[in-house]
Amino acid sequence: MQIAITGGGGFLGRRLARSLLADPDVERVVLADAVPQQPFVEDARLVILKANLTDCRAAETVAQGADVIFHLAAVLSGQAEAEFDVGMSVNIDATRSLLEAARAGGRRPRFVFTSSLAVFGPPLPPVVTDETAVHPQSSYGAEKAVGELLVAEYSRRGYVDGRVLRLPTVCVRPGRPNAAASSFVSGIIRGPLHGETAICPASRELELWLSSPRAVVQNLLVGAALSAEALGPLRIVNLPGITVTVAEMIASLERVAGSEVAARVVFNEDPVARRIVSSWPARFDVRRALALGFGRDREFEDLIREFLADEAAEGAVRPA
Amino acid sequence: MQIAITGGGGFLGRRLARSLLADPDVERVVLADAVPQQPFVEDARLVILKANLTDCRAAETVAQGADVIFHLAAVLSGQAEAEFDVGMSVNIDATRSLLEAARAGGRRPRFVFTSSLAVFGPPLPPVVTDETAVHPQSSYGAEKAVGELLVAEYSRRGYVDGRVLRLPTVCVRPGRPNAAASSFVSGIIRGPLHGETAICPASRELELWLSSPRAVVQNLLVGAALSAEALGPLRIVNLPGITVTVAEMIASLERVAGSEVAARVVFNEDPVARRIVSSWPARFDVRRALALGFGRDREFEDLIREFLADEAAEGAVRPA
Repeated sequence: MQIAITGGGGFLGRRLARSLLADPDVERVVLADAVPQQPFVEDARLVILKANLTDCRAAETVAQGADVIFHLAAVLSGQAEAEFDVGMSVNIDATRSLLEAARAGGRRPRFVFTSSLAVFGPPLPPVVTDETAVHPQSSYGAEKAVGELLVAEYSRRGYVDGRVLRLPTVCVRPGRPNAAASSFVSGIIRGPLHGETAICPASRELELWLSSPRAVVQNLLVGAALSAEALGPLRIVNLPGITVTVAEMIASLERVAGSEVAARVVFNEDPVARRIVSSWPARFDVRRALALGFGRDREFEDLIREFLADEAAEGAVRPA
Repeated sequence: MQIAITGGGGFLGRRLARSLLADPDVERVVLADAVPQQPFVEDARLVILKANLTDCRAAETVAQGADVIFHLAAVLSGQAEAEFDVGMSVNIDATRSLLEAARAGGRRPRFVFTSSLAVFGPPLPPVVTDETAVHPQSSYGAEKAVGELLVAEYSRRGYVDGRVLRLPTVCVRPGRPNAAASSFVSGIIRGPLHGETAICPASRELELWLSSPRAVVQNLLVGAALSAEALGPLRIVNLPGITVTVAEMIASLERVAGSEVAARVVFNEDPVARRIVSSWPARFDVRRALALGFGRDREFEDLIREFLADEAAEGAVRPA
């Protein structure tokens, strides 16, 4: 089995590659990213590729021979809001280029597209399901919603066998803050654990819909392994998460790491980040996802402990 | 007030232009179409333009100076299904070019985008509302759904003041059969009235959601006149229609034109047209549209009588 991962320079892409390489049936993992990457594991099956997917020849190189394509590459929410044309180009045009490349290859690969709860916005029902209408309130959300439609249409036509997985906000992300409006969600846990003050631009009462990196990587693998028959005509799945308030996150941090650590979170409301993040839903009915075999985290303290364990395994506070 | 109409060579575009030119406040109506057109009315304010909107310079020419843009240009459902790349290019890329041109002009024009009930598909609720999730089952529907998201996003960012009007199936269309999968819906009325046999590819029991051309043109004008405040953050409106079965249509035809005319409808099921058309919903809750001031037809017989009256006014069976 040959695999391609776009946005493979991100931490999810690398963790996904590591999990895939643990499977002896995997013959090749192409890790493509617009940013040059260093190999992070010794494995002859791992191919590192610098590729700008908005160039259709690059997209063809990535898609070539792939049985499964994980399309993780994206401009994140903060940047997409600040740089509209860049977001449109990467989040829509590159997705289409990759779908076209997969179509041209004629192998009908499984195409796992990571979307986001950012496709939703008010007016929202109390609980979001896989049948809730999208109503994006950010450029990132609008672009992901377009990508979802493209993946579904290319699947309906038989050009790819697509699966759209809508990720909860991933927490705790390792490394540095990123260009997502939700970057603070990991920042208020990671920063204090690293001895740093962290600014929270949202209120304590804000509810979030979170998933651990481990659950997301596992669910990407589940998404790729699902048969088209099991998935049915609805190609979109809201992945399971847990609903937590900012206050509960800080209380969990205090229980795991002590009150001195938890006191490093400082509230300083930022209207832009706040508007975007508070338009996202935090309560989902994920019975369909669970029935399809996707997994979920248990409670927020576990996410903190997993983060600490993963950091220890990967060499402490070095950016992952 | 300066107006641009794309797809202006179609009969809706021309009727819309005629209505607009009746308003003395209208200074200019640009009627753009990829196909060359003849002027159909003597009016110095009417500008006929041959323009392929996938060329961004052509899109700029169309959008230039416009206070209101009616974007009607589209590849219809039958052609979009048969020629995927043409549909993507016209229904998505040209829409985006026009939005970009409007953005570049910096005037934030009202942008009236005609979408379609083809964005919906099973699984459907018993009654569709403006909040029902799209689930296109045709390339045309998928492309229109992408266009809707683009218009909403360009509006949210303040580049245009967009309104997405989802049209019911328009009946009775004048002229010849077209490339829409729903072409038969008008054909089974128009053909028999013109003394021709008409083939119905769908079953008698199929329910349709219909609007007269008059109601559609009137509703396009209402859509353009609505304030952004009245519309609110949800830019999409399902236009009012009436729910009729094929059997009821033929019974109405018999009442209006006699049994000899109605007997000219021949049933011959076509699986492709049938699959597409039967995926479209026929029952809508349009209370929001009615509250916003959009109008609706009364009953199907009126649609037949209006068609006959419009044909008589426009010179009998000459293609409109």
